[in-house]
Amino acid sequence: MRIEQRPEFQIHLQNLKSKEQLYLETIFSVANGHIGVRDSNPLQGNNPNYMGTPGLFINGFYDYYQIQYGEKYTGYPVNDQVINRLCDPRYIQIKIGEEDSAVDYFKVETVDKNLDMQTGLLHEIYSVTTPQGKIFNLIVESFASVESVNVYGIKYGVVPINFDDEVEIIKVHSYINQATSATVSDVRVNEAQGHLQLDFLDGYEQPSYLVTTYKSQQGSLVTFNGDGPKLSYFKDESNHWGYHAKYQAKKGTQKEFEFLFSIGDVYPLVNARMYADQYLVKLNEDIKNTSFKSELMASAQVWQTFWLHSDVEIDGDPQVQLSLRFNFFELYQSAGKDSHTSIPAKGLSGSGYGGHYFWDTEIFMLPFFIYTNPELAKKILMYRYETLKNSQQQATQFGFKGGAMYAWRTINGYEASAYWPAGTAQIHINADIAYAIEQYYEVTKDDDFLNDYGYEIIVETARFYMEWGNFAEIDGKRRFVINRVTGPDEYSAVVDNNYFTNKMVKFNFRMVQKYAKRFEHTDLSNRLGLSPEELERIQEAADSMYLPFDEDNKIKLQYQNFDQMNKIDLAKIDNNDFPLLLHYHPLMLYRSQVNKQADTILADVLFPQGYSDDELKRDFDFYEPITTHDSSLSQAVFAIAAARVGKNAQSYSFFTQAIETDIQNSHHNTANGIHAGSLGAAWEGVFYGFAGVVNNAEIFSMDPKLPAQWNSVKFRIFLYGSEYIFAIYEHEVHVSLLSGKGSTIKIAGAKCELDSESPDQVIKY
Amino acid sequence: MRIEQRPEFQIHLQNLKSKEQLYLETIFSVANGHIGVRDSNPLQGNNPNYMGTPGLFINGFYDYYQIQYGEKYTGYPVNDQVINRLCDPRYIQIKIGEEDSAVDYFKVETVDKNLDMQTGLLHEIYSVTTPQGKIFNLIVESFASVESVNVYGIKYGVVPINFDDEVEIIKVHSYINQATSATVSDVRVNEAQGHLQLDFLDGYEQPSYLVTTYKSQQGSLVTFNGDGPKLSYFKDESNHWGYHAKYQAKKGTQKEFEFLFSIGDVYPLVNARMYADQYLVKLNEDIKNTSFKSELMASAQVWQTFWLHSDVEIDGDPQVQLSLRFNFFELYQSAGKDSHTSIPAKGLSGSGYGGHYFWDTEIFMLPFFIYTNPELAKKILMYRYETLKNSQQQATQFGFKGGAMYAWRTINGYEASAYWPAGTAQIHINADIAYAIEQYYEVTKDDDFLNDYGYEIIVETARFYMEWGNFAEIDGKRRFVINRVTGPDEYSAVVDNNYFTNKMVKFNFRMVQKYAKRFEHTDLSNRLGLSPEELERIQEAADSMYLPFDEDNKIKLQYQNFDQMNKIDLAKIDNNDFPLLLHYHPLMLYRSQVNKQADTILADVLFPQGYSDDELKRDFDFYEPITTHDSSLSQAVFAIAAARVGKNAQSYSFFTQAIETDIQNSHHNTANGIHAGSLGAAWEGVFYGFAGVVNNAEIFSMDPKLPAQWNSVKFRIFLYGSEYIFAIYEHEVHVSLLSGKGSTIKIAGAKCELDSESPDQVIKY
Repeated sequence: MRIEQRPEFQIHLQNLKSKEQLYLETIFSVANGHIGVRDSNPLQGNNPNYMGTPGLFINGFYDYYQIQYGEKYTGYPVNDQVINRLCDPRYIQIKIGEEDSAVDYFKVETVDKNLDMQTGLLHEIYSVTTPQGKIFNLIVESFASVESVNVYGIKYGVVPINFDDEVEIIKVHSYINQATSATVSDVRVNEAQGHLQLDFLDGYEQPSYLVTTYKSQQGSLVTFNGDGPKLSYFKDESNHWGYHAKYQAKKGTQKEFEFLFSIGDVYPLVNARMYADQYLVKLNEDIKNTSFKSELMASAQVWQTFWLHSDVEIDGDPQVQLSLRFNFFELYQSAGKDSHTSIPAKGLSGSGYGGHYFWDTEIFMLPFFIYTNPELAKKILMYRYETLKNSQQQATQFGFKGGAMYAWRTINGYEASAYWPAGTAQIHINADIAYAIEQYYEVTKDDDFLNDYGYEIIVETARFYMEWGNFAEIDGKRRFVINRVTGPDEYSAVVDNNYFTNKMVKFNFRMVQKYAKRFEHTDLSNRLGLSPEELERIQEAADSMYLPFDEDNKIKLQYQNFDQMNKIDLAKIDNNDFPLLLHYHPLMLYRSQVNKQADTILADVLFPQGYSDDELKRDFDFYEPITTHDSSLSQAVFAIAAARVGKNAQSYSFFTQAIETDIQNSHHNTANGIHAGSLGAAWEGVFYGFAGVVNNAEIFSMDPKLPAQWNSVKFRIFLYGSEYIFAIYEHEVHVSLLSGKGSTIKIAGAKCELDSESPDQVIKY
Repeated sequence: MRIEQRPEFQIHLQNLKSKEQLYLETIFSVANGHIGVRDSNPLQGNNPNYMGTPGLFINGFYDYYQIQYGEKYTGYPVNDQVINRLCDPRYIQIKIGEEDSAVDYFKVETVDKNLDMQTGLLHEIYSVTTPQGKIFNLIVESFASVESVNVYGIKYGVVPINFDDEVEIIKVHSYINQATSATVSDVRVNEAQGHLQLDFLDGYEQPSYLVTTYKSQQGSLVTFNGDGPKLSYFKDESNHWGYHAKYQAKKGTQKEFEFLFSIGDVYPLVNARMYADQYLVKLNEDIKNTSFKSELMASAQVWQTFWLHSDVEIDGDPQVQLSLRFNFFELYQSAGKDSHTSIPAKGLSGSGYGGHYFWDTEIFMLPFFIYTNPELAKKILMYRYETLKNSQQQATQFGFKGGAMYAWRTINGYEASAYWPAGTAQIHINADIAYAIEQYYEVTKDDDFLNDYGYEIIVETARFYMEWGNFAEIDGKRRFVINRVTGPDEYSAVVDNNYFTNKMVKFNFRMVQKYAKRFEHTDLSNRLGLSPEELERIQEAADSMYLPFDEDNKIKLQYQNFDQMNKIDLAKIDNNDFPLLLHYHPLMLYRSQVNKQADTILADVLFPQGYSDDELKRDFDFYEPITTHDSSLSQAVFAIAAARVGKNAQSYSFFTQAIETDIQNSHHNTANGIHAGSLGAAWEGVFYGFAGVVNNAEIFSMDPKLPAQWNSVKFRIFLYGSEYIFAIYEHEVHVSLLSGKGSTIKIAGAKCELDSESPDQVIKY
């Protein structure tokens, strides 16, 4: 395989506006869904002379940290779960003559960085100056394999620029808790101090570590090998195993040293200790009899397949094209691929939000995978099935008779929110998961998934709402109400009848009914104890669900009473006061008509059908001016909504802002990690916005609104097991069936039948 | 002065149901509003062999403790303020031969305790057994002087029972942070660890200490002297000054040792250090050339005066009589008397609630003082004027243009609530203070107070509400709404238009208008910048205040939407699950129709006028069954409400439960301190309930409902500077003018004119 250099797939340092170190550590992190490695200064290690927040993250590998509360009430989570920051595998110690990077301060200047998204290879050049003025170039190549997700490869090239001297490179990882030097005062970040324990395992031909947590009772294993001139396996002064090479270096001559890490899965602590030998055999196999290059090529091959199915090609807008690709690249880098993990809100690029999974996965990232990589989408959904039992337990502990209460933020399924008004109260998470299951099923028709896992979640989430909510009389009518909850908009907490929540719950209820017949008298139905009476009650609740509406202005109300909140003019607020959550007490925001992010508008985006364009437009016109977009999940949603109501210029503007969240560091916190939800939402912007795909349509429907800036946009999707390619031009859509038996789809109102006989069509619009 | 022994003024251990040590430490604590001393085991000290929570509390003497939050948002209080627990002045070390109470474990059994409320003297007898089986009686007498509030006296009598041996008594207080052995897991308690610093000051004839805090920059001074056979001033092995006496003790012969402490005021740290000598001269004077007996007699004299004006005499109900007296005694013991301090929610009998002042003072305790001791009432209100500046600063920091935002819980005026939904959100505190000012003024006609302090608070509190609230259209009408607040009922937080809050704020607004004319063109008015336009806006807000009402059931709604909350049947909840706040997540309570305490009913009690008996009855019948009375402030309010709607038996039942909160330990947490608010509410039960005094009446009105259990009830009050005595019998009220020029009052609908010519009247009803 020969891969061409294609700048349109490269994130090149020279093209980035910000050169801030912590930001670059995130942007140039490499990951594969199992592991993520921040793009650190490779000489930092735990030497406090260097400033940075390096680290290796393993998806699902966390520790518990007791949450401190001023006042702790019943049912509060005892522990936070925080993803572990393991030692930086990029770290290398270099000695030039008497000077030692681990002791002395070597000045490290970045010459260039280039992340090639076709291959996943990060290529970097540093110029390093020792205190005595010796200068050498350090060339670093690294990747996290997407072919074999335990594997991480790194290659160092050392080129003396102004000296001949003895050089020693030492690759020993003698500690496990990676120290960082950034101080954090942002409520959205969780920088717990490491408590990992490291055991060096003896008797192996390469450094082998057992890593265990202090409180969460987890363990993993790390091993690595090296290759290069004069490189040998050795034990350092502290009795730590590693590699080193000492050689006489010549000005201008490069020596290369490559290392392959094999980073284990996450095991229960007991197993990790008991079966360490067995696990290591398997891990060693991954990196034995191979090379940096072979592993890189194998991984690049998988990236090729990824891009084949998942790319969106835009003609006429190279800037947006590159940003979008970065988004897709990061999504795939971030997604857990083992059915036991999901996608952390910051991917594996930082420990922001503690490495927790949120609704971001199901509502903002999953559609990308459902349509372009349904097998992976299924694995991501399986994480929710794996944590169903924990969620059922949570519902019971909360005081409910049954049902499942999914955690708002979690790694292991248990709630880890330290602030319930913007945590536990966001009970829409249940319905978000049910919505994603329905969407996955409707796109894949994966009956096995629905039968074995999906319907059980749909029923158990719905049951929770049946207990939380109640019937009450409103305006003389019997309604199902859902009180004291927080919707997506975190500037409005503990409200009654949040429109988004109620709409989603109604859908959740409808799904229970929709498939009830299919499961009648089945083992599942018996096991769930789903009676006709219960189904009837659920139907009644769905039918009478209260959806707050402002009759005067004919707009959906974000929540009951929202219309009587204090009106504020965002234009009058000082620019430095955004995001508002960092500058105002919650009560200043909660009592005002101000939105952090799309809430009612998101409901319109997820449920566009049944409303006139005028009504959707009224909603947009009301909510747009009161939304700060302090959440990175907001702008892409407004982009879709704007496209649908024909505000094309505004849509394009929201869209470009959304897709540049990380690449432009527009929220000023990409240093803590990428905004994975926002990355997924960008794809939704193209798909639901510009391509105009209609959510929950009876048959797949598309109503394109090509931005004026684009000549065309092309993408592939899977639908009911068939793959299609769409090319949307200003007044035409070209569609081709690539594989599978095809089906009927609707484009710009016109029905097209595609099958192997007639796989191509052109539709004018 | 000779004081008779009168059991009806005595809290005698033998009559108490609970003999639990920590409970008794509270019940038998002695205090005077400046200091409070828990009734510890006098041999405990900091010896961990003994179990207890001793301590000396100085009103207003606190330290800062950083509040830990899982997620900390802008505007959250950084520090908690926790009242300092100083070393126990009851502590004494006793050596019998070779045995030493400070090292060995002496078994201390309580023989008897008797608290005489006529004199404030606590008399106790302990039987102490040494490890070697030597038994002696220890008789302890102690009091906190209400005549000279810096003075605390304690006298020990030692009587060998079964031995002749050398006895040494040592009175050295060598540490300042009192260790306690109770562990606490109750969210309502704040047991911060002590950080006090103790400096022994040299060059004095008696032990003199400077006590300073770690973070709050406060200081106080303590000094004490002693008298007794062979007692001498000495320096112990650790170089700490104190007293000791070594003597040959004879079986059956008592030796007495008495000590007078002088415990200083609370000074800024700098002053405490700089002027320590001066302060000590003054403190020494208080205890020089006097004796335990003289000081006790002087204090008893003040207690006599207190009882003369403040007693409520009940004929026919000795149990209730005693409980009531205990309540009044504790109220006076707890009340700060220096204009710089208020009344902590737990008095000075424990560190529950951190020693904070709440609305409890203004709404539940102050009426007792307003009517029976108006000078003291004024001093207590002055504390709020002293903290007005802090409250204005808080409003500004919260993001408001002006006004004052009083702290929900505080010692120094700054908010110390760690949980805003049941803290900062209780903005009714502002109006509670304004209500108390109006009540004080209407009863005293103290123009100076209104002019110099009261009106300024009324205006500044109102201004805060004008900014918090806003005008909005509800049911087609323009209304002033107050959203996202928490009313008194802490099982309903972050609600819109809490009836109680809105009603109180309306009253606050009306007070601004009521006195506006009087202050027109005055310096105050100019300084406040009160314009006709602002007054007009305030009037408009008051006129259009939204008061939620259930039109179907014709009841006041606790808050907008309350009628649609989940209904639960309290009878079906397990008895062990009360108080609910210790057993349910807040959201389980907030979304249900369940009350911790009186809320709407409290509004009816504070504003009884303008509603028919039927309406008040409907409110009562709706709220009574859904109220758990998990707050000790609840039952007395229901007692008043019940009396007013003619439910006399129920009223008496609520009343007796309320007044026995501490004496019967009915909330199981009197160990953490008395429930000062509940004590005050008990007086309100008699006054507003059984005597039927009408709040906010144009002229003083009384509409008696004597409980069937009582033959009569007698009490005195001050009204517009005159003192009256009332005796209420089954069908008659006897009233006499005792001093002052008298006025017109209304009894059972009949107007009576009382003046020095005709000071007595009998009214039939």
